[in-house]
Amino acid sequence: MPLNSLKDAFLDELRDVLSAEKQLIKALPKMAKGATSDQLRDAIEAHLEETKSHVERVEAVFESLDHKPRSKKCEAMEGLLEEGASILQEDAAPDVLDALIIAAAQKVEHYEIATYGTLCTWAKMLGYDTALQLLKQNLSQEVTADEKLTDLSKTINKSAMNPATEEKLEQAKAR
Amino acid sequence: MPLNSLKDAFLDELRDVLSAEKQLIKALPKMAKGATSDQLRDAIEAHLEETKSHVERVEAVFESLDHKPRSKKCEAMEGLLEEGASILQEDAAPDVLDALIIAAAQKVEHYEIATYGTLCTWAKMLGYDTALQLLKQNLSQEVTADEKLTDLSKTINKSAMNPATEEKLEQAKAR
Repeated sequence: MPLNSLKDAFLDELRDVLSAEKQLIKALPKMAKGATSDQLRDAIEAHLEETKSHVERVEAVFESLDHKPRSKKCEAMEGLLEEGASILQEDAAPDVLDALIIAAAQKVEHYEIATYGTLCTWAKMLGYDTALQLLKQNLSQEVTADEKLTDLSKTINKSAMNPATEEKLEQAKAR
Repeated sequence: MPLNSLKDAFLDELRDVLSAEKQLIKALPKMAKGATSDQLRDAIEAHLEETKSHVERVEAVFESLDHKPRSKKCEAMEGLLEEGASILQEDAAPDVLDALIIAAAQKVEHYEIATYGTLCTWAKMLGYDTALQLLKQNLSQEVTADEKLTDLSKTINKSAMNPATEEKLEQAKAR
């Protein structure tokens, strides 16, 4: 299908982000399970619920333009999540693993911030008011999720600064 | 190699970003060649030169810590660049292609902003002053590159709003 106008590019990008969000819904429970800090696990689980609402809003954007929601495999998110999955396989001390999970999650958030940023700009130019409102809500939640991770990282990074003790490693194994 | 402390995570992330920047050096010339706007091509070529200096700075960070520069395949950047490459294959009108190239480039910039953001936070916590200065320079250039793309997109998006004319398509084919 040729992309002849900004509307076509908008729909193409919308299909990309629908795929990205759906991939994330599958990956977040694994990241939550891998987290050793209760606070981090709670934050990831809360973001999973938000991500489900992002999918619904993207689908509503399609419908507001009389288009059937369709997704198109987002290779970028696939790469980001492969990196996240390989972190979970690392032989890492618990706090260090948490610090790495936060870093990976912030990369995912920034991917989505860039995508929703583009989509909001295009929706505004194209005069798609309903779409713009819905996309702005998703963008705002991604920005907040990124900020929450930054806050959380302050405590976790401090704890990760010191080499892991035997006790910490035993606790992690016992989980 | 087990990751026992934040220093290990820092070095691991540094290897990831070295791979990401090196992959980008290979991909940017293709993106520049695919761009139809002279301004966009110039912006990508200017960022290519900056990216070469980012590699040098990341290598200098390794050296400041008496570590040999090493890279570790960054799967996330691989995915981001696959997406960029598939855009270049799209059957798209010239302005629309440029709008999509900008969107893809901003995703790459945001990936790097997230990574250098994490690296700067960790360098500060670990007291790596030389590393922090070098990484801050890279972060600052990525943020500026992202802002430049946003500025550029304002003109290009406007032009892409209207369906491509035969004349535009002929001009594109003649390139």
